Amino acid sequence: MSSQLFAIIAGAGPGTGRATALRFAKAYPVVLLARRPETYEETVAEINAAGGRAVGVSADAADPASLDGAFEAIGRELMPGLRLAAAVYNAAGGFARKPFLETRVEELDGNFEGSARGFFLFAQKTLPLLLETVPTSPPHAPTLIATGATASVRGSAQLGTFAAGMFARRALAQSLGREFGPRGVHVAHAVIDGAIDIPRTKGYAVNDGVEDGKLSAEAIAESYWYLHTQPRSAFTHELDLRPFVEKF
Amino acid sequence: MSSQLFAIIAGAGPGTGRATALRFAKAYPVVLLARRPETYEETVAEINAAGGRAVGVSADAADPASLDGAFEAIGRELMPGLRLAAAVYNAAGGFARKPFLETRVEELDGNFEGSARGFFLFAQKTLPLLLETVPTSPPHAPTLIATGATASVRGSAQLGTFAAGMFARRALAQSLGREFGPRGVHVAHAVIDGAIDIPRTKGYAVNDGVEDGKLSAEAIAESYWYLHTQPRSAFTHELDLRPFVEKF
Amino acid sequence: MSSQLFAIIAGAGPGTGRATALRFAKAYPVVLLARRPETYEETVAEINAAGGRAVGVSADAADPASLDGAFEAIGRELMPGLRLAAAVYNAAGGFARKPFLETRVEELDGNFEGSARGFFLFAQKTLPLLLETVPTSPPHAPTLIATGATASVRGSAQLGTFAAGMFARRALAQSLGREFGPRGVHVAHAVIDGAIDIPRTKGYAVNDGVEDGKLSAEAIAESYWYLHTQPRSAFTHELDLRPFVEKF
Amino acid sequence: MSSQLFAIIAGAGPGTGRATALRFAKAYPVVLLARRPETYEETVAEINAAGGRAVGVSADAADPASLDGAFEAIGRELMPGLRLAAAVYNAAGGFARKPFLETRVEELDGNFEGSARGFFLFAQKTLPLLLETVPTSPPHAPTLIATGATASVRGSAQLGTFAAGMFARRALAQSLGREFGPRGVHVAHAVIDGAIDIPRTKGYAVNDGVEDGKLSAEAIAESYWYLHTQPRSAFTHELDLRPFVEKF
Repeated sequence: MSSQLFAIIAGAGPGTGRATALRFAKAYPVVLLARRPETYEETVAEINAAGGRAVGVSADAADPASLDGAFEAIGRELMPGLRLAAAVYNAAGGFARKPFLETRVEELDGNFEGSARGFFLFAQKTLPLLLETVPTSPPHAPTLIATGATASVRGSAQLGTFAAGMFARRALAQSLGREFGPRGVHVAHAVIDGAIDIPRTKGYAVNDGVEDGKLSAEAIAESYWYLHTQPRSAFTHELDLRPFVEKF
Repeated sequence: MSSQLFAIIAGAGPGTGRATALRFAKAYPVVLLARRPETYEETVAEINAAGGRAVGVSADAADPASLDGAFEAIGRELMPGLRLAAAVYNAAGGFARKPFLETRVEELDGNFEGSARGFFLFAQKTLPLLLETVPTSPPHAPTLIATGATASVRGSAQLGTFAAGMFARRALAQSLGREFGPRGVHVAHAVIDGAIDIPRTKGYAVNDGVEDGKLSAEAIAESYWYLHTQPRSAFTHELDLRPFVEKF
Repeated sequence: MSSQLFAIIAGAGPGTGRATALRFAKAYPVVLLARRPETYEETVAEINAAGGRAVGVSADAADPASLDGAFEAIGRELMPGLRLAAAVYNAAGGFARKPFLETRVEELDGNFEGSARGFFLFAQKTLPLLLETVPTSPPHAPTLIATGATASVRGSAQLGTFAAGMFARRALAQSLGREFGPRGVHVAHAVIDGAIDIPRTKGYAVNDGVEDGKLSAEAIAESYWYLHTQPRSAFTHELDLRPFVEKF
Repeated sequence: MSSQLFAIIAGAGPGTGRATALRFAKAYPVVLLARRPETYEETVAEINAAGGRAVGVSADAADPASLDGAFEAIGRELMPGLRLAAAVYNAAGGFARKPFLETRVEELDGNFEGSARGFFLFAQKTLPLLLETVPTSPPHAPTLIATGATASVRGSAQLGTFAAGMFARRALAQSLGREFGPRGVHVAHAVIDGAIDIPRTKGYAVNDGVEDGKLSAEAIAESYWYLHTQPRSAFTHELDLRPFVEKF
C-alpha cells in the first residue's frame, strides 16, 4: 500500500526540512522542494544511498508558475502514479531583528512571500492531491503540516516583519484545518519555540552550551511523523515544541 | 495646545473610518486618507460645516510613493506646523468567504496589501511624527490604532485569505506596541467582532432585526477616542468590541 | 434617573478598589464591601465629605452566609429602593512567588476562595439585581467587572497557585459574559499587567523610579468607568492595562 | 532499565484513564488510582491477565491524607524500589451545563477540587519522585501530564463552574512546565476538544453516528505516550486533540 504513496517537503534545507525528509523517507518516497539544488542535493543523495527513494525539484513556492512546473514534473515523471500521503511546508522568510523604522517594506514583502504566499500556493497544489488520497484508505490520514515559530503567536519588538509573515501562515493553517479536517485531511501547525541545533546557530547566546538547549531537528521531524500518524478520531491541530530549558 | 495637534484617519470610508474622523474632529483638525475622494468628501464637508476642520487626501496606503506624496502634502500645506496626536489605520482588504481551492492568490495578495502592507507603511510614516510629539507634553499620549476583526485572532474555514492579512496586521501592531510603548507612543489594536451597522450590512443574517445587534460605528469611534486618552501609566494594547447579542 | 441607581465595589482596599469607588461615586451612591471596616472606612468618609454618598459593609465574599447578610442589609437599609448599576469585583487571593514544592495546598485554597469562589458568589448576588435594572432603561448598561492580572492569562514558574485562582476567575467572567451579555448585562474582565502604584509597591524592582512606570489606580478606575458607559452595541469583554514601559 | 520504572494514572476510569493505563502498561508496571475500586479493578485485571503488571489504589486526590496514604503504599509495597517514569492526572470535576443562577457554589467547589486541587496534590506527590528519576538516565524524560478540555481554554455560557476548574488546572500545568522543565521533568497539558467515544457518550448529539466523530480514548492514550517519549530537546507543553469533524 504505502509503496504507492509519497511525501513532499518544501523548504528542504538543513534543519527541520532535511530531518523531515529523512524521517518521512523511512516510509515513503519523498520529494524535496527548494529554490536551489544545493539546498536538497546532499539530502537526496543520502536518502537514496541508504536505500530510500528521494528526488529533488527546484522551485520558488511563492511563484505560481514555478510551482506549477514543479508539480507537473512530480506528477509526470518524478512520482508518476503515486498518491500524496503528506506535505510539509517548512520554507520561511528571513528572520532578522531590526528597529521598525529602519526596516524596508521589501523585508515585509519577503516574509509574506516566504511564510504566507508560498504556503498558500503549496497548499493549493497539495490539498487536491491529499483529498484524492482520502478515499484510498491510506494507513494514515493525508496530512499537511506547516512549520511555525514563536513569532507565529507573539509579535516582538523589532521582529514585526517576521511575525507578520508567520501570523499570516498560522491564519491560513488554522483556516485550512477547519475547512479540510472534516474532509479527512489532517492540517497541523507546529510552533517551534527556540533555536534549532544546526551549524548556523552555533554560538547563539540563548541556551548555548547547554546540552539539548537547542531543538534537535530530528526531534521536530519525529513530531511531524507523529502528527501524520494520528488517527482522524484525534487530530492535533497545533502543538508547541521547545527545549526543556527554554523560557516561555 | 491641542489646537496645534492633528489626527489622521486612513481608510476613511463609511462605518468606522468616518465615525472616527467625526469623533477626533471634536478635538483636533483631521486628515482623512483614502484611495478615492468619493470615500471622504462627504465627511470632510460635514466636519467643516459643523465648525471643525478636516481635509481629505487621496493615496493608496499600500503604495510607498503614493503615501510619500500624501504625507508631504500634509506636512507642507494641509497641516503645516501641526504635530500628530493620533493616527488610525482602518483600511482593509476585502472580506469574502470562499472555498480555499477556488481562491486566487491575488485575493491573498490584496488582503496582505490592504491589511498588512498598508498598515506597515502608514506606521512608518506616522510613528516618526508621533515620536516627535512625545516631548511636547500633549494632553494625551500620541496614539497609533489599528482596526482588527474576529479574523485577526481566529482563522475560519473559507476565510483564510482575509484572516492572513488581519493576523499579519495584528502581528505588526503587537510588535509596534512592544517597541514604541516604552518610547511614549500608545499603539493599540481593536478586535471588532461583529457586523458594523452601516447601509451595506442591512440584511446580513447575523443579528439582523435585533436592536443594537450590530456594532455602532460611533461606539467604535468612542472606544478609539478612549484609547487615545488613556494615560501612559495604563495603556490598553488590545480590546474586543462586539454587540451584546453576538456569539463569541 | 441615576440618583436611583447605585454601585457596589467588592475588595475596596487601597489601589484599584478605592479608586474605583471614588470614580463611580461621582455618578452613583456606592457600597464598599470588604472583610474588615479598616479597609473601606477612610474611603467612605472621603466620599461622603466630598458630597458623594458611600456606605461600607463588612463581609467575606467567599462565605455565602456573610454575603447574604451584606446584601440583605444593602437592600433593606443601605440602598433601599435603589437599583444596581454596576458591580466590581476586585478582591483577590494573595500573590506570592514560591517554589511549588514548598507551597501548601491551603495557599491554593486561599487563592481559589478569594479569586474564584468570592467572585462566583458576588456574581450570584449581583447578577439578579443587574438583570432587574435592564428594563428600567438606565443611562448605561448594567455592568459586572472583574479585575484580573497577568496571571489570569499566563501561568508562571512559582506563581501557579495565584494563577490558578485568577485563571478560574477569568473562566467565570468569560462564561458569564456569554450567558448574560445577550440579556443586556455587560460583563467585563480587565487584565491588569503590572504593579499598581500604591505605597505597598514602592520599591518593587520592576520599573521602580520610572515616572508612570506603575499603574495608576485612578487610570484603572477610569477604564472601569469607561467599560460601564459602553453602549450595548459595542461591549468590550476583555482589555489589558499596563504601564507604557512594562514588558509584555 | 525500564523494568525498574513505573507509571501512575490518577482518574483511571473508562475512557482516557483506562486507555492510558493500558498504553503505559506496555512499557511499565502501572498504578491505577481512583476513589473507588470499581473504577480500576477491571482494567487492573485485564493488564495483569495480558502479562503486564498493574495495581490499583483507592484514594481521593483532592484529600491530602488520602493521597499520602496511597503514595506511602505505593512506595512501600505496591512498587517498592521502582522509580517513577510518568504520572498522568485525568480526574475531573463533573461536567454539567446549567444556568449560572441555578448553580450551587458546591458545584464550583467540586470542580475546583477534582480539577485543580486534586492535580495540585497529585503533582506535589509525583514531582519529587519524577525529579529523583531525572539523574538515572531513563529512556524517556520523566513526565507529568494533565488532561484538559475545551473548557480549559474557553469559558462557555452555562459551563462556568466546569471551566473554572479546568482553567485553574491549566494554570497549574503551565506554571509547573515553566518551573520543572528546566529541571528535566516534562510537564504537558492536553486539550481534549470533543466527546470521547465511550458507552456513556453514545447518543450525544454532537457528531453522533459519524464514524470517528468522537475521540478514541486509545488515540488520546497514544498521544500521551508520544508526549512521554519526546526528548528534552523538543518538549511539547500543550496540544489539542479533536475528531476530524469537530468544529473548532
